Amino acid sequence: MSDARMFPHRHLLGIAGLQPHEIMFLLDEAEQWVELNRATSKHDDRLRGLTLINAFFENSTRTLLSFEIAGKRLGADVVNMHAAQSSVKKGETLIDTAMTLNAMRADMLVIRHASSGAVQLIADKVDCPVLNAGDGRHEHPTQALLDALTIRRRKGRVHGLTVAICGDVLHSRVARSNILCLTSLGADVRVVGPPTLIPADVARMGVTTFTDFDAGLDGADVVMMLRLQMERMTGGFVPSLREYHAFWGLTPERLAHAKADALVMHPGPMNRGVEIASGIADDPERSAITEQVEMGVAVRMACLDVLTRRRRGVEGWA
Amino acid sequence: MSDARMFPHRHLLGIAGLQPHEIMFLLDEAEQWVELNRATSKHDDRLRGLTLINAFFENSTRTLLSFEIAGKRLGADVVNMHAAQSSVKKGETLIDTAMTLNAMRADMLVIRHASSGAVQLIADKVDCPVLNAGDGRHEHPTQALLDALTIRRRKGRVHGLTVAICGDVLHSRVARSNILCLTSLGADVRVVGPPTLIPADVARMGVTTFTDFDAGLDGADVVMMLRLQMERMTGGFVPSLREYHAFWGLTPERLAHAKADALVMHPGPMNRGVEIASGIADDPERSAITEQVEMGVAVRMACLDVLTRRRRGVEGWA
Amino acid sequence: MSDARMFPHRHLLGIAGLQPHEIMFLLDEAEQWVELNRATSKHDDRLRGLTLINAFFENSTRTLLSFEIAGKRLGADVVNMHAAQSSVKKGETLIDTAMTLNAMRADMLVIRHASSGAVQLIADKVDCPVLNAGDGRHEHPTQALLDALTIRRRKGRVHGLTVAICGDVLHSRVARSNILCLTSLGADVRVVGPPTLIPADVARMGVTTFTDFDAGLDGADVVMMLRLQMERMTGGFVPSLREYHAFWGLTPERLAHAKADALVMHPGPMNRGVEIASGIADDPERSAITEQVEMGVAVRMACLDVLTRRRRGVEGWA
Repeated sequence: MSDARMFPHRHLLGIAGLQPHEIMFLLDEAEQWVELNRATSKHDDRLRGLTLINAFFENSTRTLLSFEIAGKRLGADVVNMHAAQSSVKKGETLIDTAMTLNAMRADMLVIRHASSGAVQLIADKVDCPVLNAGDGRHEHPTQALLDALTIRRRKGRVHGLTVAICGDVLHSRVARSNILCLTSLGADVRVVGPPTLIPADVARMGVTTFTDFDAGLDGADVVMMLRLQMERMTGGFVPSLREYHAFWGLTPERLAHAKADALVMHPGPMNRGVEIASGIADDPERSAITEQVEMGVAVRMACLDVLTRRRRGVEGWA
Repeated sequence: MSDARMFPHRHLLGIAGLQPHEIMFLLDEAEQWVELNRATSKHDDRLRGLTLINAFFENSTRTLLSFEIAGKRLGADVVNMHAAQSSVKKGETLIDTAMTLNAMRADMLVIRHASSGAVQLIADKVDCPVLNAGDGRHEHPTQALLDALTIRRRKGRVHGLTVAICGDVLHSRVARSNILCLTSLGADVRVVGPPTLIPADVARMGVTTFTDFDAGLDGADVVMMLRLQMERMTGGFVPSLREYHAFWGLTPERLAHAKADALVMHPGPMNRGVEIASGIADDPERSAITEQVEMGVAVRMACLDVLTRRRRGVEGWA
Repeated sequence: MSDARMFPHRHLLGIAGLQPHEIMFLLDEAEQWVELNRATSKHDDRLRGLTLINAFFENSTRTLLSFEIAGKRLGADVVNMHAAQSSVKKGETLIDTAMTLNAMRADMLVIRHASSGAVQLIADKVDCPVLNAGDGRHEHPTQALLDALTIRRRKGRVHGLTVAICGDVLHSRVARSNILCLTSLGADVRVVGPPTLIPADVARMGVTTFTDFDAGLDGADVVMMLRLQMERMTGGFVPSLREYHAFWGLTPERLAHAKADALVMHPGPMNRGVEIASGIADDPERSAITEQVEMGVAVRMACLDVLTRRRRGVEGWA
């Protein structure tokens, strides 16, 4: 039987700070939800009577849907707060908005925000567990967990694998959380991209940097493409889409540099023909893209369950 | 006891392709939900544990509300995806969005889209039943079913009735689905409107065309007005509202050409004073407009129930 | 045991028209929900099978969230209709929209609208109870109830207290409902603000008017600040924010004029540094601002419960 020593954290704000066995614990917990979600009746009532608020200060259809479905399948009362309609627009501060959600006696807050660190600010103030659903360029921990779960299920392990994270690393919290998660689990992580899109501090994170795409893919077990986030590029180099694809798009020719059974991943939504060729995205042998989405719901169910165990008085956790 | 022979279709993409007895089966099934919805406690748990996603790529408040209420009253976990906030805006393809919803293990997708055929594209790809909630100028099958149910309840039958569908037929998927449904059920359907708003292919659908409004209403049992869809008119003739009302608005004088007990219908939302005079819309003896809304929820409950029977393992359907 | 004589009203459209004992009854009913909301499992199934529609023709994140959470905790099927996505935009009249919600067999409508009297119009037409969640400058009764509950819990009573309602009274339905509620419960209510932001008819409401802020606060038990609603100011005097704060912002110096244990309230969202200094808003001894939010959910649960008792056939109420 598990207890709070397996995951002694109150919040899930990032992969940073998690021990490898804590990450593995969340992945193990997620497995049961993969099974439940494949059944006809996909319902468990363990969060019944709890209020989950998804407070999205930055739009994200798929992540919001994933959390909403996860919460509802666990029986919670799920309420969404969209920034676009929010009192934030009326001049209210972020902390005041958070304290309002807290005063409504939320049992769990899932927060997405365009600014790095905003979720931490909220977590410091409220009484309930907070889950970071993406903050600025900082972290997106459930994305890293679902990616690790996908790799583990497809490759049998994460440890010892060579994973190439390719593309616009600079603007990507997905890359950041994945680097932390995969290195922690013992993968050999490479960061592959144009020099202008690789952050300066990445070398300190225990990864190898490649600015030659083919060399970066050479012998890789997993090729993780990133979304080109034109909407985050302000000032500096903005490539044309055709330019980007020619130099940094994953094509069959390029993929041939990776291992013959290399897994291709993408966090979505994809820009087909930009960072990834359609044929690769749709190849069921190589692409794990839809499986990533599926694992997303399972991982989020695991996180919602684990983070609320203390307040639900689950034996060993209260 | 019913079984899958009553309705052997996996999806509900349109009225086209349905047999008359299949349409009647859905109407018969809807009757129980009319009763439930009139009770105090309007809840049935047959969809408990199933996830219904309403993916609306085109806005529609009332249709979305109707499906959301239908799903919730049947106990499903209902999740709405609004196009305006969706990753479609980030350049994702329609099919990728659909595959994402599929990967989240939706048990039922209700789709609305501005392009004819878009719902079929999705249905061809996903694992779960798909229900068309309106696609471009193509079909809106639950609207036709709720209209047929309303007529059957008010007139006792559909067969043999003279139904005049009036107004902007060209831009109307409602008209198209209603023509298919009502002719299939044996009604004598007339299409009545200005020549510029009647599609060329309507003659092949077994209806009579009238460009004289009074003549088209002569002796009609049912007068079905269409919404003037100014927002769909691009290029060509765009009438002024006053002009439209003068020539094609349903007034008491015009309605006098129909039978004395003719039923007046409108799919809503109405442009009062444009395609229909207020006095007619509000006459409880003649107007079935609010009853259409009520039948809408019941018909959608029937469709959600029937289309998920196979996956729920209902006896005779699995 | 309670019965319908305790609250014989079909709708809750305003505080006007309520007897003091009816207000007290709603506050008493709310106490049980304060307790439930502080428990881990905050769920009661008394509204199970009922459909609650929150129809917000004017945006309001916090009020909508509060009603949505209240309805879900009571087990209702809760559906939100946002004006921004609504068929109102397609030219439908307010009454037609309301009749549509009615035809979908809503058991309770919670309505917010930018026009005074719009909620009454709807209530006159539909079959189910209607709750006013704020209409124009008219009323916002649940805000007044939650404020009264907050005062009663913090001060032990409302009767005999001196309450200063300060700021932009002219544009505030919150002020109007609070004046009606607090005078009805026997408080000595003062209205304090610049002459241009005090409505002419306020003198007839049994309150004392102060245009000197310090004099208005002198000896007050409760200082209720209003939000400066710049968005409602059209024509006439529009102060700069700095100007407003200098003359009408609540600062520690000004608050010193009130009683030493005076309670500070604000309906939110706050403009910090405009109508209220941050230090005061965050002082747990003086500020009841987050408690107001908490009481909001409880009061709304009480209203939803009480207003639906007749249709649920609760003994003594049917």
